[in-house]
Amino acid sequence: MDKIINYKILDCTLRDGGYYTNWDFNRDLVNTYLNSFNDLPVDYLEIGYRNNPMKEYLGEYFYCPEYVLREARQLSTKKLVIILDEKNVRPEHVEQLLKPCVGLIDMVRIALDPEQFSRALKLAEEIKKMGFEVGFNTMYMSKWKQNTAFLNELKYVDAVADYFYMVDSYGGVYPQDVIDTIQMVKERTSVKLGFHGHNNMELALINSLTAAEHGAEIIDATVTGMGRGAGNLKTELLLTALNARMGLKLNFNALSKTVDGFEKLKQNYHWGTNLPYMVSGANSLPQKDVMEWVSTRYYSINSIIRALENQKAGIIDN
Amino acid sequence: MDKIINYKILDCTLRDGGYYTNWDFNRDLVNTYLNSFNDLPVDYLEIGYRNNPMKEYLGEYFYCPEYVLREARQLSTKKLVIILDEKNVRPEHVEQLLKPCVGLIDMVRIALDPEQFSRALKLAEEIKKMGFEVGFNTMYMSKWKQNTAFLNELKYVDAVADYFYMVDSYGGVYPQDVIDTIQMVKERTSVKLGFHGHNNMELALINSLTAAEHGAEIIDATVTGMGRGAGNLKTELLLTALNARMGLKLNFNALSKTVDGFEKLKQNYHWGTNLPYMVSGANSLPQKDVMEWVSTRYYSINSIIRALENQKAGIIDN
Repeated sequence: MDKIINYKILDCTLRDGGYYTNWDFNRDLVNTYLNSFNDLPVDYLEIGYRNNPMKEYLGEYFYCPEYVLREARQLSTKKLVIILDEKNVRPEHVEQLLKPCVGLIDMVRIALDPEQFSRALKLAEEIKKMGFEVGFNTMYMSKWKQNTAFLNELKYVDAVADYFYMVDSYGGVYPQDVIDTIQMVKERTSVKLGFHGHNNMELALINSLTAAEHGAEIIDATVTGMGRGAGNLKTELLLTALNARMGLKLNFNALSKTVDGFEKLKQNYHWGTNLPYMVSGANSLPQKDVMEWVSTRYYSINSIIRALENQKAGIIDN
Repeated sequence: MDKIINYKILDCTLRDGGYYTNWDFNRDLVNTYLNSFNDLPVDYLEIGYRNNPMKEYLGEYFYCPEYVLREARQLSTKKLVIILDEKNVRPEHVEQLLKPCVGLIDMVRIALDPEQFSRALKLAEEIKKMGFEVGFNTMYMSKWKQNTAFLNELKYVDAVADYFYMVDSYGGVYPQDVIDTIQMVKERTSVKLGFHGHNNMELALINSLTAAEHGAEIIDATVTGMGRGAGNLKTELLLTALNARMGLKLNFNALSKTVDGFEKLKQNYHWGTNLPYMVSGANSLPQKDVMEWVSTRYYSINSIIRALENQKAGIIDN
């Protein structure tokens, strides 16, 4: 990694993009992706979830079976990451889920609702025991100010995690919110900070650069922004910005090769922001519903906006 | 206009979007557009260029003949705007070009290269004599610091223009650049300031909000960001942000109706940013070439990036 920037970059295209493809990806695309990133100034690649078996069909990168991990490890020179969804995983599942990862995976992240912070701390303890770096991807940062219970427990994260992530789940925070949140967090913990931005309001780049400038030590991005709902900070945007502003060395051949592949996929799945995602982002409304409404294409933008407006009114009433 | 924000908003979808459709727009789409904006908190609509006859074919909104102006005036309750391209228009053309606009059009803007600032001042003088509000859309703001000749003439703009616009032609400026440029301009003129942002780096919203916060009194946007190359600040994004942050009243039915129409058009023309536009934006390289390369779809992203890299190297050599 070029030492021109003092933070790490994590690309989570396969994990976060899986929300559109049900975690199935064409093998050639994955190979191109892994090979291209060997030539790019990115530190970590998050390749998917590890999960207990579910009833409905979910693709390879939702489970990351051992052969997926081994193939990725063979092709990639980067640190590899998998993520656990805290709501589905308990400490007693850890050994079985993560044993195949030992020696192949460098960091295990936990996606968590701050309401379950204490439970997540216990999960992290088990993961840490197995020798992994641990990341705490804590959702809903736009609502943290109202959640004092969780804030009081923040200090315990130092002992069990390497990175504490602020996740802008709704894609609605502004640079000043990022600065305020970092300050609020730094008063309570000395763990390294991370930022995972969503792009509903097209603020993912400026929020991520602001986070880094104010001390975040790891930034998430995905190729073409592929990711749930309106999607993420675009890896190619972050790298191009750092190349032009900071002189970060960048192999545009490698970058455009992997971007090309995902741009083709985007023509089928249409991730990215639009008016309904903007409304959900601006008002901190769940984009999961919006994503379903937008994807079915049965609903007009108009009826989606009306549904969102009703949700918003409901939230205000409560 | 809701007095909740202390600046004006100008939508220039037909004018700037015309770069994709050769300034032809379906009559129904235009009617929906004009009608919808009657219910939206936007002050000005720029409907197109006025131009002397050109050799090649160019559509209705490149010339805005009198019947177009009359129809727009009849349908719209907003202030209407047309723009002149300084490089093609001289003071002696003004009367013929603008006489049909009297009583129908409220503001005439001039798109200008700062190299031609003195010439543009004379053009503005003629326009002002006819009673129009005058806007000075001055391009290439990312390069102004290096252009002292133009900066020395800035003081003369007070007498002939109502708005002096900073145009981020390459879509590569950051909020701090906006703040610095505003300060540089304010030291030299007391005219009202405007900002026209491009979205190559997905910074159009934050740059526009920053401009407004630091004293800009008019902000440009287009529906779905439709506009040359990577496109503009999206009107629906700005309005949704102001609705959520400032309580600006917003008729989402009207907004989504016009957004829907342009989203359909976007499926044919694919405006918006992508890796080549990011590279051109981040490095202040002309996006006109990139737009041609991307539109023909003959070139791979890879070869476009290589061409841009060569241009960039060339610029450094000079």
